[in-house]
Amino acid sequence: MVLERISSPADVKELNSAQLKLLCQELRTFLVESVARTGGHLASNLGAVELSVAIHRIYDTSRDRLVFDVGHQCYVHKALTGRRDRFGTLRQLGGLAGFPRPDESAHDAFVAGHASNSVSVALGMARARTQLGADYSVVALIGDGALTGGLAYEGLNDAGESGEPMVVILNDNGMSIDPNVGGVASHLSRLRVRPGYYRFKQGYHAVMKSLPGGRKLYHFNHQVKSSIKRAIYPCSMFEDMGFTYMGPVDGHNVEQLCATLAWAKEMACPVLLHVRTVKGRGYAPAERQPERSHGVPPFDPKVGLVSKQTVDFSYIFGHELVELAGKDQRVCAVTAAMAEGTGLQEFAAAWPKRFFDVGIAEGHAVAMAAGMARQGMVPVFAVYSSFLQRGFDMLVHDVALQGLHVVLAVDRAGLVGSDGPTHHGCQDVGYLTQIPGMSVLCPACFSELRAMLRAALEMEGPVAVRYPRGGEERQYPDWNGESASVLRQGTDATLVSYGTMTGELLAAADALAEKGVHAEVVKLHRIAPLDAGLVLESVGRTGRLLVLEDCYEVGSVGQQLAAALALSGVPVKSIILKNLKGSFAPQGTVPQLRRLLGIDAEAVVQAIFNR
Amino acid sequence: MVLERISSPADVKELNSAQLKLLCQELRTFLVESVARTGGHLASNLGAVELSVAIHRIYDTSRDRLVFDVGHQCYVHKALTGRRDRFGTLRQLGGLAGFPRPDESAHDAFVAGHASNSVSVALGMARARTQLGADYSVVALIGDGALTGGLAYEGLNDAGESGEPMVVILNDNGMSIDPNVGGVASHLSRLRVRPGYYRFKQGYHAVMKSLPGGRKLYHFNHQVKSSIKRAIYPCSMFEDMGFTYMGPVDGHNVEQLCATLAWAKEMACPVLLHVRTVKGRGYAPAERQPERSHGVPPFDPKVGLVSKQTVDFSYIFGHELVELAGKDQRVCAVTAAMAEGTGLQEFAAAWPKRFFDVGIAEGHAVAMAAGMARQGMVPVFAVYSSFLQRGFDMLVHDVALQGLHVVLAVDRAGLVGSDGPTHHGCQDVGYLTQIPGMSVLCPACFSELRAMLRAALEMEGPVAVRYPRGGEERQYPDWNGESASVLRQGTDATLVSYGTMTGELLAAADALAEKGVHAEVVKLHRIAPLDAGLVLESVGRTGRLLVLEDCYEVGSVGQQLAAALALSGVPVKSIILKNLKGSFAPQGTVPQLRRLLGIDAEAVVQAIFNR
Repeated sequence: MVLERISSPADVKELNSAQLKLLCQELRTFLVESVARTGGHLASNLGAVELSVAIHRIYDTSRDRLVFDVGHQCYVHKALTGRRDRFGTLRQLGGLAGFPRPDESAHDAFVAGHASNSVSVALGMARARTQLGADYSVVALIGDGALTGGLAYEGLNDAGESGEPMVVILNDNGMSIDPNVGGVASHLSRLRVRPGYYRFKQGYHAVMKSLPGGRKLYHFNHQVKSSIKRAIYPCSMFEDMGFTYMGPVDGHNVEQLCATLAWAKEMACPVLLHVRTVKGRGYAPAERQPERSHGVPPFDPKVGLVSKQTVDFSYIFGHELVELAGKDQRVCAVTAAMAEGTGLQEFAAAWPKRFFDVGIAEGHAVAMAAGMARQGMVPVFAVYSSFLQRGFDMLVHDVALQGLHVVLAVDRAGLVGSDGPTHHGCQDVGYLTQIPGMSVLCPACFSELRAMLRAALEMEGPVAVRYPRGGEERQYPDWNGESASVLRQGTDATLVSYGTMTGELLAAADALAEKGVHAEVVKLHRIAPLDAGLVLESVGRTGRLLVLEDCYEVGSVGQQLAAALALSGVPVKSIILKNLKGSFAPQGTVPQLRRLLGIDAEAVVQAIFNR
Repeated sequence: MVLERISSPADVKELNSAQLKLLCQELRTFLVESVARTGGHLASNLGAVELSVAIHRIYDTSRDRLVFDVGHQCYVHKALTGRRDRFGTLRQLGGLAGFPRPDESAHDAFVAGHASNSVSVALGMARARTQLGADYSVVALIGDGALTGGLAYEGLNDAGESGEPMVVILNDNGMSIDPNVGGVASHLSRLRVRPGYYRFKQGYHAVMKSLPGGRKLYHFNHQVKSSIKRAIYPCSMFEDMGFTYMGPVDGHNVEQLCATLAWAKEMACPVLLHVRTVKGRGYAPAERQPERSHGVPPFDPKVGLVSKQTVDFSYIFGHELVELAGKDQRVCAVTAAMAEGTGLQEFAAAWPKRFFDVGIAEGHAVAMAAGMARQGMVPVFAVYSSFLQRGFDMLVHDVALQGLHVVLAVDRAGLVGSDGPTHHGCQDVGYLTQIPGMSVLCPACFSELRAMLRAALEMEGPVAVRYPRGGEERQYPDWNGESASVLRQGTDATLVSYGTMTGELLAAADALAEKGVHAEVVKLHRIAPLDAGLVLESVGRTGRLLVLEDCYEVGSVGQQLAAALALSGVPVKSIILKNLKGSFAPQGTVPQLRRLLGIDAEAVVQAIFNR
């Protein structure tokens, strides 16, 4: 076993050619067996085996900076940088993170989780290096999917113009990018992937830069050369942006990757290295169904990936929207490359002309939906809470300012579990409720989601329906459109929440009742505009308020209710706000995190007793 | 006079060729004279005269949808759509808006103000049209500057792929876009701007679409044709994205514009029409100094534009940062195409290697700064409050999650005056204070800005220093780093604010004192993390709290203080929150708006009496 002898990237550099290939084989077996046990991201990591090995062969990630994008392809990197024996704890509370985390290893240069930021981050690092006179290399590793994000374009535009030496590795598994790019690229690669060409360019850059005014001259000459080249060969948009383009390289030929990376590393300019990979490579069930083997639960590696439909909030949403679209031709669905995750696959099949997947482009999705709404459509943008942060400005400027009727299906709101801090949806309560004219509805079970989605389509102005990852925790009485309701009457304290967190209150109320404390439970169905009436009335009777939620305290509903209480003059003996306070939450199962953060039924019971 | 006879766009369509040219001349004179009286955006509107006339010649904007981007070039459009006689009220309270406003005219299809959204919005409109079976045309008018924004790329990417008939007019005044694009483009235009070519294409599309499966076939053929064309002619990135490219067209030849627009309108696919214009065209002082004549105060048209340095918060910030950068080589400045507006011109001249203008790309600016901070630089991103909304996700994900020391110089915080609702910086208090680990400092005068900027550079984690548009309203005692201080002692009520709004409280306290009411004035220097200690102590003595600010109520400091008060159990007789509540603020001078919105000294005095 080669893999067993690898305790750090230095060991990778010692291997001979045969051992390198063996290492890649063993890493694949390791990935399949490990992810089969814990669940996690499979296909993307299988596709990045040779690329990760090559990077560690050429770079020293303890000082060179390797910036992942999204981070779904970091497992091999983690396995090669001393974390192989922690894979049994992957994505678990206190365990190995599923994404790069600088607080986990010096080899993780930056967090990843949201798409398309790697070029920007890497450019910042390259500029810092140049400015502070350091000499490390900087590499951004971005997938073709993330390249559809406008942030990547902004980063490439600036990086190309900057002239900063850095390498952007485009890990192109052909799942998203326009096939044209590939066609153009193959022409170029025949010309380019030749050592002599690069050596000439490299020496030329060095000479030009050493001359007075050489940089400017180089840029001028570069343009002239580019024009000539364009007149003969097709160009790529990367070259238009100022990058030197290399590739495409076979992403599963580790030796060719190493050789090309070595050249790219020595270039004194921004380089885009186009690498072709196959998602799921080497594990037949994943190669056959890459979209099914992206994020997977534990499985039997001999049987392969069994796909079964989970009936969760996303599924219920998607299914209900198909029905509603059948009754109203104005209804359409928008997703930012998350059709499967948001439950819109059924819609895509049922109403293909009214289904719009805009790529990883949440800002565009919101602005585009605003244009639709302005002209009489009823667009429903289904999006994860933490990714909708990208559309905040468009929600304010393009939607709310004109009071347009855009419906947001905010999935993965609140704690999401094992994806951890980059993916928790703990900001939306704050940033959505502060937008003038925004309505926010909070279903706690499937029937409420259906009813609130129906209501949202009939309302005016922007409406968000927010619901968590996973399934319903219990069922609630039919919702009749009221802003809040009393689920359980009591005299000693008013417990308030919304969404599935309400279940913790009901459990707490049960436990409290056994101890002789009778808590009233108020469930908010709508948190914006916030109607504090029922809560104030209840607190007027009980004298005590506890608000439970899984978001940060500033901007929380609890803070808004406490303020409403203070403004109302209703006398109150105690107010307790149970939320995340001001800290990012780690990874773990949702029940574990609720326990850890003190926002579960037990914490509520204790708080009521300890006040 | 031709212009006097134009009461609606229909009249433009009646003019003969000579009259059209005369109309353009008269519009230029009108623009210069009108903007000279009121101030406003000059150079961009002078550059768009012929283009605006041509658009109204070819389209009917009461039903066709014309979507502006940013909107700095909408004056001629407004003058031709029945609003010429309102130009004396431009950008004033209750007057004509400086940007498109659907609530002002049926000819304004959508709001504009923030950059790069027009393609997204227009695509949404085009899709709504197709879906609902309507037959209007859709046009997006975007400048080359706005094209640097990632949102525009996301929009173009999706629009090109969509195949939706729509025209994106690129108003290229050469101020920002890569000259390469122009070079490539001129080749294309020689081939293309020929009626026969378009007529062939048009007929071809119609035939292909009528066949079963024709759409798919057309797409396939289109790709083949594109490949052939690329092999012979240089390509442009717009064609890569699926647009039919037309141009460049001389943007000051109204007849050529009309002819080309007429063809573009009839095309059954997404068209990018590249129009070359000269900023400031026809008014010599503006042509000479287009960057100086972008947004201008009233001036004498005979003398021309007199540039004088205004000593405002932006200038003080820029000047101080030059000094601080001299003492610490880690300090650098980042701007998103707003070097002049944010006061960074002096910095750009003094420290060119540490000055980074990344284009209209706020998201990238934040992520890039995060990369810099991770590697030991101290980046200062100077940005308008309302534009920083674009960077919200990056502030959370790339900066705050790792506690990186990125400094935000948040300019134009609070009400900005005549630019109106798209530009008011009334969200940042809410969205910045909710981000875990974010510090927010609020200078109220120049000396505080200097001191707080120095402090921000020495602090840890993300720090925002937020200050308003314009100059200091009064001076305050030296700031010694405390989170809040009592500026005036009193016994009857505690008045709290931060930033320049504090001046309204001091004026109110004076007026109240004359009436025998002694108000204590507490100024918050830091609003995140919020230290309510001094306020609670004061309210403990006075029993009354009033918080004044120019942001929305949800997420406001007032709401946070009211909650803190409720949680503390300090007894209070009354709490009054003076803020924008839940409505967008209109345009007007800042004093007018404070009066209108009930957040000036007089309103405070009345509130204290009427409670």
